[in-house]
Amino acid sequence: MDAAVFIATSLDGFIARPDGSLDWLNDAAAGGDDYGFAAFMDSVDALVMGRNTFEFVLTTGAWAYGETPVIVLTHRELVLPAGLPGRVETRNASPEALAKELSARDITSVYVDGGSTIQSFIRAGLVNRIIITRIPILIGSGIPLFGALDTDLQLELVRVDSYPNSWTQVEYAVVDTR
Amino acid sequence: MDAAVFIATSLDGFIARPDGSLDWLNDAAAGGDDYGFAAFMDSVDALVMGRNTFEFVLTTGAWAYGETPVIVLTHRELVLPAGLPGRVETRNASPEALAKELSARDITSVYVDGGSTIQSFIRAGLVNRIIITRIPILIGSGIPLFGALDTDLQLELVRVDSYPNSWTQVEYAVVDTR
Repeated sequence: MDAAVFIATSLDGFIARPDGSLDWLNDAAAGGDDYGFAAFMDSVDALVMGRNTFEFVLTTGAWAYGETPVIVLTHRELVLPAGLPGRVETRNASPEALAKELSARDITSVYVDGGSTIQSFIRAGLVNRIIITRIPILIGSGIPLFGALDTDLQLELVRVDSYPNSWTQVEYAVVDTR
Repeated sequence: MDAAVFIATSLDGFIARPDGSLDWLNDAAAGGDDYGFAAFMDSVDALVMGRNTFEFVLTTGAWAYGETPVIVLTHRELVLPAGLPGRVETRNASPEALAKELSARDITSVYVDGGSTIQSFIRAGLVNRIIITRIPILIGSGIPLFGALDTDLQLELVRVDSYPNSWTQVEYAVVDTR
């Protein structure tokens, strides 16, 4: 199973302010470009996200995932609200166990989202593609994209793009050294 | 006075491992390209660095600054070793006070180096150019390039370049909103 990250960060590496807010990102996003999001969504069979990210998504009132299955990782029971616009399942599983289950279901490519979920999939060696849209702002503190690791992780640059609003996007492939 | 940062970081935003080591950077640097360093040095009149960075530079046995004056910021007395290859002064001064002194000496463009020195110059609103060479590796922990801020700092992308070894380099101008 392939796992990919597609996320925006501040130049100082945060995916949200300490309270989870994305105002620094929304303000700058007025351009209307989707920064490759639709094409990226077409490249995955399912999403995996943490409960916090899922609950944040619900507060936005928007559903960007269409009919693509969304698997919400949670350690506590999560009663899904009625009338969800998409296909949502919940799991209490490790990245490894979930990857095994999804592979058995012929889900070969997943989009991993949310700070702690991304970090746990990277630590488990399951992420092989990372696409970062970098917003040209320093916010000073927040929820970091990356976290502690047991060993270094080497990547290869696939491409780098820039946009007229000073955003950049880099895509890396993880070098599999196991 | 203009102040610029020219520095390499890991993809997770560290300029060194927790113990200061740069092995993750040296290993990858075998290409021989100087990544614009000589041209950047030509664009500055002086360097300002913290004592830790200066002492690290001395341990490398290499002096990359030619005859460009180097000002070492330190709160404790620093006896300069004899036979230094370059022009070195020490100061115990705030970024603001130093900027004022250097401006009076007709030093109009400085290269600010070292983690805490960079952060203090950014916090003081004195940095207007940031050039980051990004190494495609996650090291998990270390000395971060950026630190806490009182307010957001907005930047504009000047350019982005990539190298055959998967390194990228981005240059930003700080948007002066004061």
